[in-house]
Amino acid sequence: MEQTWKNNLRKIKPYVPGEQSREKDIVKLNANENPYPPSPEAVEAIRAFDASKLRLYPNADATPLKEAIADYYGVSKENVFLGNGSDDVLAVAFQALFNSDLPIAYPDLTYSFYPVWCDLFGIPYKTYPVGDDFRINAEDYREKNGGVVIPNPNAPTSLGEGVDFVEKLVQYNPDSVVIIDEAYNDFGGETSAPLTKKYDNLLVTGTFSKSRSLAGLRIGYAIGSAELIAVLEAVKNSYNSYTIDSLSIEAGRASILDNEYFEATCNKIIATRERLTSELEALGFTVLPSQANFVFATHASRSMKEMFEYLKTKKVFIRYFALPRIDNYVRITVGTDEETDVLIREIKEFLK
Amino acid sequence: MEQTWKNNLRKIKPYVPGEQSREKDIVKLNANENPYPPSPEAVEAIRAFDASKLRLYPNADATPLKEAIADYYGVSKENVFLGNGSDDVLAVAFQALFNSDLPIAYPDLTYSFYPVWCDLFGIPYKTYPVGDDFRINAEDYREKNGGVVIPNPNAPTSLGEGVDFVEKLVQYNPDSVVIIDEAYNDFGGETSAPLTKKYDNLLVTGTFSKSRSLAGLRIGYAIGSAELIAVLEAVKNSYNSYTIDSLSIEAGRASILDNEYFEATCNKIIATRERLTSELEALGFTVLPSQANFVFATHASRSMKEMFEYLKTKKVFIRYFALPRIDNYVRITVGTDEETDVLIREIKEFLK
Repeated sequence: MEQTWKNNLRKIKPYVPGEQSREKDIVKLNANENPYPPSPEAVEAIRAFDASKLRLYPNADATPLKEAIADYYGVSKENVFLGNGSDDVLAVAFQALFNSDLPIAYPDLTYSFYPVWCDLFGIPYKTYPVGDDFRINAEDYREKNGGVVIPNPNAPTSLGEGVDFVEKLVQYNPDSVVIIDEAYNDFGGETSAPLTKKYDNLLVTGTFSKSRSLAGLRIGYAIGSAELIAVLEAVKNSYNSYTIDSLSIEAGRASILDNEYFEATCNKIIATRERLTSELEALGFTVLPSQANFVFATHASRSMKEMFEYLKTKKVFIRYFALPRIDNYVRITVGTDEETDVLIREIKEFLK
Repeated sequence: MEQTWKNNLRKIKPYVPGEQSREKDIVKLNANENPYPPSPEAVEAIRAFDASKLRLYPNADATPLKEAIADYYGVSKENVFLGNGSDDVLAVAFQALFNSDLPIAYPDLTYSFYPVWCDLFGIPYKTYPVGDDFRINAEDYREKNGGVVIPNPNAPTSLGEGVDFVEKLVQYNPDSVVIIDEAYNDFGGETSAPLTKKYDNLLVTGTFSKSRSLAGLRIGYAIGSAELIAVLEAVKNSYNSYTIDSLSIEAGRASILDNEYFEATCNKIIATRERLTSELEALGFTVLPSQANFVFATHASRSMKEMFEYLKTKKVFIRYFALPRIDNYVRITVGTDEETDVLIREIKEFLK
C-alpha cells in the first residue's frame, strides 16, 4: 500500500538544466557565458576579502551592492532589488507581482523558465506568437492580462527592441505589471531602466552572469518603483533574509564600479558577434540581427540539428532547440576570436 | 482612483530580520554566529580559487560539495540536498513536502520563520505548547497532521533531544513527513541523520552558518531518502537551477574535509558555554541545559528586558524576545572567552 505521506509531496516535473559539459579543451558556446574573465577589480575584491568575516551573516540588505547598482542606473537604493541570480529575481517577481486570475502574457518563443515558474506558483499564462521575422508584436499585448513579461533582447532569437517599444507596451498595460528581462541588454541593447521613473508598474531585471562575467557568483537585480521593490523585498524576506553572500556583495560592487572594463568587454563581444555574423552569412547562413551575446542562425540547405551534433563530436558545443518554428535554428554564444576561428573552421568542415 | 495593477501585488507583511549592528568594537552575541573564523582550509580554497572561472555557471548539482556532505554523514549523494543557507532549504522543503489540508505541527516556542513560510505558501499549521520545563512533548505529535517540523536543539530554548526521541516522533507519524532542523546540532547534540536510512519520511536539515563559521557564504543542506530529495530537487530546479555559487562549493567542501578544525572549534564553544553557564548560575541566573551555541537564561529577581537594554548601552548585544512565557528570558550566543569576560563583567555591573 502506498504510504500516505507521499500524497503530500509536491507533484512537479523536474526541470532539467541545459547540458553543461565539464570536459577540458572544449569550445563551450552553449550557455551564453562570457568568454572573458570578470573585472580585475572584482577578482581583487575576492582576493582582498577578509575570509574570517565569513563567520558573520552578510548584510541582509546588501546595501553596498544596491547602492552601486542604483548609482549606475541613476536611481535610488529603494529602487533596487537583489537576488541569487536573475532567475531568483524573476521567480520572486512572478510570485510577488502576478496574482491575478487573468493569464500573464509573454511570447511563444522566449525564456524557457517562464512557464516553469507559472506551473510552480499556479499562475495562468497565455503566449503570443512572435511574427515570421521573430519580432514581438506590441499590439498583441493590448489584450487584458494579469501581467506581461518580455525579454529584451529576446532569447533565443537575439532580437532587441528600443525603449519606444517598451514604453508602448507599458502604455497598453496600465492595469498590469510589465517585466522587461534585460539579461542580454548590455551588448548593444537599450535599457528601459530610466522608464521605471515614469511608470510605477514597470520592472526591469538584469544579471551579472552575462555582461559582467560573474555567472559563478549568482547576482541578479531588478529596477523599479519603490512600491514594486517593497513588495519584492517583503516576499524575499519571508523566504530567506540573506540571499546575497558577503563575497558577492564585494565582488559585485567592484564590478559595477569598473565601468571601463565592463564597456571594453561588451565592445569586444559586440565586435566578435559582428564578425561571426558576417562569416556565417558568407557561408550561406541567415543570422538574425543580434543585440545579445549570442546569435540565432539557420541555413537554407542544411540541417541545423545535424550541424549541432557534428560540432559536438568536434568538441564545439552550441545549442539546438527541438521546438516548433525554430527546429532548424541554432543558438551560438559569442566567444573569443580564437573560439570563433575554431567554430567557423568546423562549420566549414560540416558544410563540405 | 487606485490603479488596478496594485490589486495583483502580493499582500504580505514584511518580515523584519533581527537587528544586526555594524558598529565596531561591539560584543555581538545576538545572532548565534560563531566567534571563530572558518577552517583555514576553507579560507585557502577561496584564496586559491581561479576567479576567472567565475565567468562560468556553477555546477548546478554542486556535486563536489554534495559528495563531501554525503561522506560525512555516511549516505549517498542522492540523499543530499543543498540550498542557499538552511532557510532556503527549509523554505523549499515546506513548499515541496507540506501539501496536505491538515495543519503541520510544531512547538509554540521555536524558530520564528516557520509561521512566515506557512503564510507565504498557504500552509495551515498548529502549534503545540512546550512544557513548563520548555521540553517538547513527543506525545503531542501523535495528533493527525500534515507534517511535523522540530528544531533539535530547539531555539531559542537551546534544549536538545536524543535520537530515541526523534525516532519516536517519526514512528508516531507514518503518514507525514517529519523535518528535524539541526541548525544547532553540532554543539553536543545527537544527529538524527542516520535515521533517514530507516525512515523514508524523515528529513534532517543543517547549515554551515553556525558550527562551520560560514554564515557569510550561505550553505544549507538536507539529508533524506532519495525519494524526498528528488522532490526537493524538482522544486528547486523549477525555481533556480544554480543556487550554490562556485566559491561556496569549494569553500564548503574544504570545510567538511577539515574535520579536525571543526571538532576543535565546536569543543571550544562547548567549553565556553559550560563556563558561561556556571558563571551565570553563580550570579543567580537559571540557565537551561544548552546543547546549542547559545544559552537561554532568566533571573528570579531582575528584569531581563532591562538587562538586555542595559547591555546594549555597553555595546554588548544579546537577544530578547517580547513573547508570552519567555518575556523574562534572554538568549546569549556563546562567544570567545574574552567576549564572555566582558559580558559577565557588564552583567555584574547591571546586577549591582
